[in-house]
Amino acid sequence: MKNTALIALATLATVLVTPAQAQFRTPEAAIKYRQSVMTVQGRAFYGTIGAMASGRMPYDAKLAADNAELVVMLSKLPWIAFGPGTDKGAPTDAKPAIWTEQARFKELGDKMQGEVVKLAAAAKTGNLDQLKAAYGPARDACKACHDAFTSQ
Amino acid sequence: MKNTALIALATLATVLVTPAQAQFRTPEAAIKYRQSVMTVQGRAFYGTIGAMASGRMPYDAKLAADNAELVVMLSKLPWIAFGPGTDKGAPTDAKPAIWTEQARFKELGDKMQGEVVKLAAAAKTGNLDQLKAAYGPARDACKACHDAFTSQ
Repeated sequence: MKNTALIALATLATVLVTPAQAQFRTPEAAIKYRQSVMTVQGRAFYGTIGAMASGRMPYDAKLAADNAELVVMLSKLPWIAFGPGTDKGAPTDAKPAIWTEQARFKELGDKMQGEVVKLAAAAKTGNLDQLKAAYGPARDACKACHDAFTSQ
Repeated sequence: MKNTALIALATLATVLVTPAQAQFRTPEAAIKYRQSVMTVQGRAFYGTIGAMASGRMPYDAKLAADNAELVVMLSKLPWIAFGPGTDKGAPTDAKPAIWTEQARFKELGDKMQGEVVKLAAAAKTGNLDQLKAAYGPARDACKACHDAFTSQ
C-alpha cells in the first residue's frame, strides 16, 4: 500500500470544516497552498498568455482561452489561505499589511479578479489584439496587489 | 518598483518555447510546477469533493461542481512538467519509472483524466449519490498512478 502520500495530502487539506469551505490544518499548509496557486497561475498568466501578448510565444487562440479560463478559476482560490495566523509558519513574501489592511487587500484582489474575467472574455474572441488589450490591465492589477502586499 | 518577483516569475515560467506550450527553464522549475498543481488539486479533490463524499464536510452542490471543474482543468497540467531531465533538480517523490515506463505512465494519467471528467459530470447533477459514485473510481485512478510512480 503506497497511499500514504495521498492520505497525508487529504489530511493536510482538510481538518476543520466550515459549511462552505474547508480550512487549513496549519499555517504552513495555508502558505504552501497559496504559493502553489500563484505558481500555477504564474505559468498560465505570465508564461503563456503574457508570452503570447508580448510576442515571445506564437499566438494560439485555444491555448490562450484555456489558460485564461484557468486563471479565472485560480484567481478565486488563494484568499481563504490568508486567514488569521497565516502570516508566518513557513517562508512567505506576504507582508503583515495583508492582515492589518484587509479592506485594501480585498479591494485589490477583487480588482484583479474582475480584470482576469475580462481577459478570459477577450481570449475567447480568438483575436490577438483583444487579448493584448485585456492583458495589460490584468497584469497591472496583479502587480498592484503584489507591490502593496508582498515583500518582493 | 516592486515587480521583481513578478518579473522573476515570468522569466522562470517561460524561456524555451515550442509552438504549443512553453517549456521550463530548469528541472527545479518543472518540479515546483508539478508539485504546485498537485497541492492545489489535492485540496479540491480530497479536501473538498472527497470530504463531501465521505461526509466529513456538508454537501454543497455548487462548491462540489466548481471544484470538480477545477480538478478537470488541473488534471491536464502536470504532464508537460515531467520532461526529460526533470527526474532530479529538487526534492521529488517522482520515481525513475516515469521516464522508463512512459506508456504506462501515460495510460494511468489518461485514465485519471477520464475519471475526473466523469466526476465533473456527476457533480453537475447536484446529486450527492452520483458524486459519491463517481468519486471512488476517480480516487482509485489517482491512487493507481501514485502507487506506481511516486515513492511515497
